[in-house]
Amino acid sequence: MRKLQWGMIGGGEGSQIGPAHRLGAGLDGLFEFTAGALDHRPEEGIGYGRSLGLGDRAYGSWQDMLAGEKAQDNPIDLVTVATPNSTHFEITKAFLEGGFHVLCEKPMTMTVEEGEEIVKIARTTGKICAVNYGYSGYSLVRHMKAMIARGDLGKIRLVNAEFAHGHHADAADAENPRVRWRYDPAQAGVSAQFADCGIHALHMASFVTGQDVTKLSADTVSCIDVRVLEDDAMVNFRMDGGAVGRLWTSSIAIGRQHGLGIQVFGEKGGLRWSQEHPNQLYYMPLGERLQIIERGEANLSPEADRTSRVTIGHAEGMPLAFANIYADLAEAIRARKENRSIDPAADLYPRAEDGLRSMAAVFAVAQSGKEDGLWCDARPPMFR
Amino acid sequence: MRKLQWGMIGGGEGSQIGPAHRLGAGLDGLFEFTAGALDHRPEEGIGYGRSLGLGDRAYGSWQDMLAGEKAQDNPIDLVTVATPNSTHFEITKAFLEGGFHVLCEKPMTMTVEEGEEIVKIARTTGKICAVNYGYSGYSLVRHMKAMIARGDLGKIRLVNAEFAHGHHADAADAENPRVRWRYDPAQAGVSAQFADCGIHALHMASFVTGQDVTKLSADTVSCIDVRVLEDDAMVNFRMDGGAVGRLWTSSIAIGRQHGLGIQVFGEKGGLRWSQEHPNQLYYMPLGERLQIIERGEANLSPEADRTSRVTIGHAEGMPLAFANIYADLAEAIRARKENRSIDPAADLYPRAEDGLRSMAAVFAVAQSGKEDGLWCDARPPMFR
Amino acid sequence: MRKLQWGMIGGGEGSQIGPAHRLGAGLDGLFEFTAGALDHRPEEGIGYGRSLGLGDRAYGSWQDMLAGEKAQDNPIDLVTVATPNSTHFEITKAFLEGGFHVLCEKPMTMTVEEGEEIVKIARTTGKICAVNYGYSGYSLVRHMKAMIARGDLGKIRLVNAEFAHGHHADAADAENPRVRWRYDPAQAGVSAQFADCGIHALHMASFVTGQDVTKLSADTVSCIDVRVLEDDAMVNFRMDGGAVGRLWTSSIAIGRQHGLGIQVFGEKGGLRWSQEHPNQLYYMPLGERLQIIERGEANLSPEADRTSRVTIGHAEGMPLAFANIYADLAEAIRARKENRSIDPAADLYPRAEDGLRSMAAVFAVAQSGKEDGLWCDARPPMFR
Amino acid sequence: MRKLQWGMIGGGEGSQIGPAHRLGAGLDGLFEFTAGALDHRPEEGIGYGRSLGLGDRAYGSWQDMLAGEKAQDNPIDLVTVATPNSTHFEITKAFLEGGFHVLCEKPMTMTVEEGEEIVKIARTTGKICAVNYGYSGYSLVRHMKAMIARGDLGKIRLVNAEFAHGHHADAADAENPRVRWRYDPAQAGVSAQFADCGIHALHMASFVTGQDVTKLSADTVSCIDVRVLEDDAMVNFRMDGGAVGRLWTSSIAIGRQHGLGIQVFGEKGGLRWSQEHPNQLYYMPLGERLQIIERGEANLSPEADRTSRVTIGHAEGMPLAFANIYADLAEAIRARKENRSIDPAADLYPRAEDGLRSMAAVFAVAQSGKEDGLWCDARPPMFR
Repeated sequence: MRKLQWGMIGGGEGSQIGPAHRLGAGLDGLFEFTAGALDHRPEEGIGYGRSLGLGDRAYGSWQDMLAGEKAQDNPIDLVTVATPNSTHFEITKAFLEGGFHVLCEKPMTMTVEEGEEIVKIARTTGKICAVNYGYSGYSLVRHMKAMIARGDLGKIRLVNAEFAHGHHADAADAENPRVRWRYDPAQAGVSAQFADCGIHALHMASFVTGQDVTKLSADTVSCIDVRVLEDDAMVNFRMDGGAVGRLWTSSIAIGRQHGLGIQVFGEKGGLRWSQEHPNQLYYMPLGERLQIIERGEANLSPEADRTSRVTIGHAEGMPLAFANIYADLAEAIRARKENRSIDPAADLYPRAEDGLRSMAAVFAVAQSGKEDGLWCDARPPMFR
Repeated sequence: MRKLQWGMIGGGEGSQIGPAHRLGAGLDGLFEFTAGALDHRPEEGIGYGRSLGLGDRAYGSWQDMLAGEKAQDNPIDLVTVATPNSTHFEITKAFLEGGFHVLCEKPMTMTVEEGEEIVKIARTTGKICAVNYGYSGYSLVRHMKAMIARGDLGKIRLVNAEFAHGHHADAADAENPRVRWRYDPAQAGVSAQFADCGIHALHMASFVTGQDVTKLSADTVSCIDVRVLEDDAMVNFRMDGGAVGRLWTSSIAIGRQHGLGIQVFGEKGGLRWSQEHPNQLYYMPLGERLQIIERGEANLSPEADRTSRVTIGHAEGMPLAFANIYADLAEAIRARKENRSIDPAADLYPRAEDGLRSMAAVFAVAQSGKEDGLWCDARPPMFR
Repeated sequence: MRKLQWGMIGGGEGSQIGPAHRLGAGLDGLFEFTAGALDHRPEEGIGYGRSLGLGDRAYGSWQDMLAGEKAQDNPIDLVTVATPNSTHFEITKAFLEGGFHVLCEKPMTMTVEEGEEIVKIARTTGKICAVNYGYSGYSLVRHMKAMIARGDLGKIRLVNAEFAHGHHADAADAENPRVRWRYDPAQAGVSAQFADCGIHALHMASFVTGQDVTKLSADTVSCIDVRVLEDDAMVNFRMDGGAVGRLWTSSIAIGRQHGLGIQVFGEKGGLRWSQEHPNQLYYMPLGERLQIIERGEANLSPEADRTSRVTIGHAEGMPLAFANIYADLAEAIRARKENRSIDPAADLYPRAEDGLRSMAAVFAVAQSGKEDGLWCDARPPMFR
Repeated sequence: MRKLQWGMIGGGEGSQIGPAHRLGAGLDGLFEFTAGALDHRPEEGIGYGRSLGLGDRAYGSWQDMLAGEKAQDNPIDLVTVATPNSTHFEITKAFLEGGFHVLCEKPMTMTVEEGEEIVKIARTTGKICAVNYGYSGYSLVRHMKAMIARGDLGKIRLVNAEFAHGHHADAADAENPRVRWRYDPAQAGVSAQFADCGIHALHMASFVTGQDVTKLSADTVSCIDVRVLEDDAMVNFRMDGGAVGRLWTSSIAIGRQHGLGIQVFGEKGGLRWSQEHPNQLYYMPLGERLQIIERGEANLSPEADRTSRVTIGHAEGMPLAFANIYADLAEAIRARKENRSIDPAADLYPRAEDGLRSMAAVFAVAQSGKEDGLWCDARPPMFR
């Protein structure tokens, strides 16, 4: 099976996101890294791209790359957009319209209006527009979704999600530019911790329950004085399948290293999972004992099996979850090339609609936070 | 050292609360069980009291007991009120006014007005009026309070408390009278899960931080249709020392057995503790590693040492926490008898003011829950 | 129900063991502390006993106490022997022969021969001779025994027990008299860490499987030079029901606080339990998932129910386990008084035969340790 | 940086080991998979190799591959031998002698004599001969080694290692050929569970302490009757730096999924690590509290930093540990090509000497197991 061709925009020398995507895309040998515009400084981008083996498909700008790849007989099959947040919209739009499948880093856009535009373009062009909510690639997260979809928990009553860490808790470090920009509206937009971390937890709540958020109420606070945007938020929400939601996100929770986790409670059972120990899923069927589902155990769902690489008892981690998103996309692209339907167990990558809903939720949190927890519509206008 | 004399109202044959109090009061040999009105049915109460060795100080009603003990040369030193909730006010009031020290089960009263009255009576009479928030007796909960008081965490930014279990999650069991009454306003008042469990978490937040709740916003829901009162609530709050609070309580969280826990985050460190594993306290000083404080380790605070009975590595549990409240009371009573000041490490039992503040918080949660999370004053009028 | 009368020898002012026994014996209100010879110094013993309310049944020596109680119309029902190890034999023997039921601290004797003599005396006199392996009182330890007895695990293949802590790991502290005597043969006998801690793990292995140890091989080492006796030992053993055993004990395992735990593996399932978190028992039926049994859950065994005092989710700890041994003894004594058979769920207190087998195991470990792990018979001669 | 060329022998279609190695070798983009003899059936091997993109460097036998690569202008830089155990010696020998660097799956050989021969050949030819003890690639395992090497624990007193799982506990499955061969001396050699799993724990004990095993005593048992070789073993050992060792391995420990873990105790501290949760390392400095070292935290050792890919709080797992071995080898090969010394933090891959020592330990365990735990020399003759 020939490898698909993959290109990247952003992720230049010294970035964290570049190696992470190259690891994720290359891990299963499904994609070959063949083109890139890796830096907004043309020379640096071309030089770095060549050092990574891209040859004359190392471009000086995304515009050059778009033009160059369109001119190729055998252009890239997928492009990843990993540039600064404010440029995601423009680049994603251009590549979709240019006929390319896109995986865009989150946030997909900076406004709800842009998000709606991307959704429309993706629908019109028929191209894949994926958004990188990478935690949804974990094998046992997929299994939670499968269990809930097949009814193991009955009707879902409540979801409690968290993404709370302590890495921005040091007041002495708050003016450090590496940290400061995140809490500055001029650079980060309307939300800091919720937009950066909380949104992963909210996406996970939707992903595993299969329900969309309809409205929400937020209590946002800045625990360090110099910050304008929130470093801690509690969000209550409602979902279109009737579930109630609670979500806590924080960057001042000293003692917590990452803190993404989810609990789901239905009529017939409860589930609990944590990203820091992702190979175990705690499950209690109503009236029975708490039991531990292990990644890689026999007779899990197809969704779990597809995303599990090593045998039970061996740890798997985040890079493999990330690779699972790329594996989904490889299957989606191949299915199109081969005129067949996609393996349903792979049809789970987050997409433009998720990016749009997330953006609407971010704005709703910001508004509710300003208005004393007023319940706000969390849906983008086009989905109301 | 002669034992103090102790009496009990309520806690009749077959009750759970009776043996728990007798265990807690008797465990350290500080109190002797000498009087009781154990049942609202006079004959049963007298019979059961005699079977427990009370002789002619087994009474048929609390009124008889009040009269009888007042007539004793050597009356009881402390009375515990463990009757149905709606009678706490009347009995506590009568015994305080009769010159007795009282330990009242929670809730101390059914209304804020009654709570204020009890506080006033306690102040006027000078008698001890304690309220049984028993979880505050755990050794490492005491140590959290001591650490925060001496500044180990710096200014407290945020408290996140929980009391979420799954024992009322079975819809088929919701009509069971044993469960049902808790969610029925006619029997339970304005709140179910928050008043029953959440209030313990809120008390703990105040106890360890030394701050009082000023205002709150609540999202209360009933996940099972037949219930009028909430079985799940999220409460955001503010404290008078500047701390922000979040509190989740639930009775439909299948997979959780008890779920009382607290996380406290300050400028200089974070703490995490859980009732289900009460002998470990997780502590991260800012910029250092997470470390595990063990109950019974050397060089903890006087507050922790006083409430730790067995050597490090051995588990201690709830009955000992409960006994610590009684040990506090024994010290308070003795200090008065001996005209000396109380050991400050023992001066930590919850008191009428806590019972009153809790009642005000319950009403604020109920109001806020009805009004879409409106921020409500959580202080009793007399403390505004 | 009248309380039984209880007396104690040893456990004088400032001791740890005295309060622990008084807590355990008094906790359920089954025993009244009525007599004692609490100190080998007559005046101190009498003075301390009187301060604890013993009146003229505070004796100056165990000999006086034996004589005094024999002369009572209503003598003590049970005596606890908590004196220095080398005196256990003599005192236990004298009280059994004097017609008293005895609970002896471990070790019951200093030699196997003495142990056999005690067993014979207990059998001849018909008096209860219990030995305080207190960890066997935990509710879930009782439940393990019940599960195995009823066949839940099938034939037991292997037991792996541990009691490894790090409290004697500091070489700078090794000459401290408080620590040193334990590793000195003149004071401690033939074994240090195994006799002190390991034996609890070995007793537990026998208690839960219902099998006796037949032979063993030991690797004993002293990790700190000045020690003659071992501070770390690994013991392999065989049991009379066919189980294989492994047991590790250490006092130099820095980072471990207590370390008593057991794993049992049978044809049909496995169990795992740890004293530091005694309210959970991990159970995997063959071919199914690991599940968590909680102390206090519904439908456990009668043995577990009898020894569980507070509701599920609340921690219970060591003092309650200790109290369960006393509760067993109260039931055993009452059954005799009432000429009825004992509740089988209470007939689980460790007895003289356990004390004897433990002593034989200690000597076998010492011998095997000296002879390069030679397999030695671990049975006392009278049971070969 | 041009990728190194990598080839593989074994790992044909449907194998588990093939994808694991391709994942590990390719994960960081350091190696390109360019040659292979993937199946002992020539046509299948060539066909499968071509399907993986090997073109005419897909060979029908390892002999063809050896000849073919020797004839290449630009031959492979490293070959992985992942064939059935009994063929490792012959193939590894041939490739070393042919001038190739080799990574051999464990066991490196079937006898000690063969092991010594490989060591000599590796030394004579100067070629790299690595052996795949892949668990030594975990970042925090590297950090343990670094901590001990720099003296954080002082002199090491004791190591306690485990590799105990329950995947062969089903007697009904014991005759299944997939399981049975492992316990059959004709196919598996002198040891089953120790050679298969225990040896990883023993290697880890040597790896982290930097000490070699000198002698050992083993208790080996077969818990399922039809097995000739052991399914459970306890091994006591001594190391050349003075450390005492204990090692338990089992395949009948129902309830355990993997069970590789290690505890190390020195004069100045203790460490504990488990493969199932590899991103945390528990560390107690003598006299301080237990603290949790997180993979990816700041200021760890160069050895840990080099092998950590994602930020703190994100899980990393086994495939990345495996990739770290390949990354070590890439660095070793590049250093040779570039005539420079290897980065010391990468010079940690297990090598032929480790393979040889392991084989000697396997034979010593088998002998000791047969002779009632006789202490046996565990060193290969050439290292005595």
